[in-house]
Amino acid sequence: MKKIHIIGLGLLGGSFGLAARRKFPELKITGSDISEQNQKDALTIGIITEVKETPDQDTDIVILATPADTLGDLLLKTLDQIGQETLVIDLGSTKSKLCLQVSSHPKRAHFLACHPIAGTEYSGPKAAFADLLDRKVMILCELEKTDLHLKEKAFNLFDALNLKLRFMDPEEHDRHLAFVSHLSHISSFMLGKTVLQKMADDKNIFDMAGSGFASTVRLAKSSPAMWTPILTENKDNILAALDGFIANLSEIRAKVAENDSAAIHSDLTEINKIRDILDLGK
Amino acid sequence: MKKIHIIGLGLLGGSFGLAARRKFPELKITGSDISEQNQKDALTIGIITEVKETPDQDTDIVILATPADTLGDLLLKTLDQIGQETLVIDLGSTKSKLCLQVSSHPKRAHFLACHPIAGTEYSGPKAAFADLLDRKVMILCELEKTDLHLKEKAFNLFDALNLKLRFMDPEEHDRHLAFVSHLSHISSFMLGKTVLQKMADDKNIFDMAGSGFASTVRLAKSSPAMWTPILTENKDNILAALDGFIANLSEIRAKVAENDSAAIHSDLTEINKIRDILDLGK
Repeated sequence: MKKIHIIGLGLLGGSFGLAARRKFPELKITGSDISEQNQKDALTIGIITEVKETPDQDTDIVILATPADTLGDLLLKTLDQIGQETLVIDLGSTKSKLCLQVSSHPKRAHFLACHPIAGTEYSGPKAAFADLLDRKVMILCELEKTDLHLKEKAFNLFDALNLKLRFMDPEEHDRHLAFVSHLSHISSFMLGKTVLQKMADDKNIFDMAGSGFASTVRLAKSSPAMWTPILTENKDNILAALDGFIANLSEIRAKVAENDSAAIHSDLTEINKIRDILDLGK
Repeated sequence: MKKIHIIGLGLLGGSFGLAARRKFPELKITGSDISEQNQKDALTIGIITEVKETPDQDTDIVILATPADTLGDLLLKTLDQIGQETLVIDLGSTKSKLCLQVSSHPKRAHFLACHPIAGTEYSGPKAAFADLLDRKVMILCELEKTDLHLKEKAFNLFDALNLKLRFMDPEEHDRHLAFVSHLSHISSFMLGKTVLQKMADDKNIFDMAGSGFASTVRLAKSSPAMWTPILTENKDNILAALDGFIANLSEIRAKVAENDSAAIHSDLTEINKIRDILDLGK
């Protein structure tokens, strides 16, 4: 591993760069970002050593870390530019559309579809940190469509970064992520909206907010530039997840309206099972 | 301050006891719990020094820390039992019904309605810890109805525990808390339910859950015994909060269905303002 190129120098692309450099101090990292300021910051912070629009022909891995709706065109363009020994990976939160879009490209075997389950509510190169990816899950899709030799380069990098690999097809990925990630973000945003609307009447309301509120609404700080495309790219699964969530909220609303304590208690007790499942992941 | 009595030796009552003893090592703390096991644990942990059903006549402060729907009857009974120099406080999450219920009791002036904004998703005496209340907000309602001399005892204790006092009427309290606490818990429970339902088909779904999911669903581990009564005690405000939340979810659902990226982006950007407000509280 001698050279990588990162397009999109935000939280995720930046953290990838910092983590890769820590493991491979000699690594040359070039890259670019649509924002001039992000490029400057990425140089200052040491995410990249040189701003470059197009990856060199001898680049080992090109990492695409831009918003979900820009990845398709960028991937096709990048595959057209790269050398014979270059692998392209993306870090997008949605996979089905992207995998479909690239399926008939003559260099399809140069691409590996990736999604690291890592992030914070902050964005931009200044939010990046080398430990963000440490021991996180990395989902890989359509592994069989990537060239065996090129795949090795990705595995070497992922191993060095302590990523835990999981494999699934793009549709399964998008269906699952709608529930365990995208829905959480929408819920958090809408919770924030509901309270902001209430605050229009009651200025002091936040004084009473405890750690529980802060925890459920934290994701409402997330970047609209990142999350707007995720919602539309994974539309069908997100609509299904939202429908389930709204139905459950309407059901508990009805139970509260009817003072049906027994039904509420039994519902909450059943949901408490999530405790074991969440703790399993630790 | 020589003697306090705690009824309900769970997370909150237990943490009050531990914090009070840390500040006043000579303090005698008696108490009781509906659960024998909790009483034993509270003795072992050192929350109380003696199990006692009824507070001694020379008790300075009786702390009621049982579920919201049990506080009314317990408060009336306790006021009937106490000595002339005893103050009774409650730590309940809802205030309107309780204040109304106690309003015509001959010993109304012996009561101070309190709500500390502190908690975790765990419950029982073993979950209690002395720092839980440190520098947290303590809301006091109908302060003018409590005897001046008895109030001093509470202020001394609250000062020693570093509680930050806020004053408001019971209706305002319940209206605000529905939005900044109760709604967060319901949202978290229903998010957990939605994902558990999905998991019935897809066993591996939690493998893909990141820190964002864990953060929004953490409160779904909370105690049904505590939360069921809160939902019914604060019914009207909770229905209003839920209606606002469901309406916002339905609106964003419509925007996703229409691929209206501009509207979604502008919505999320507006909600990002919660960033400044949340950070203000730090």
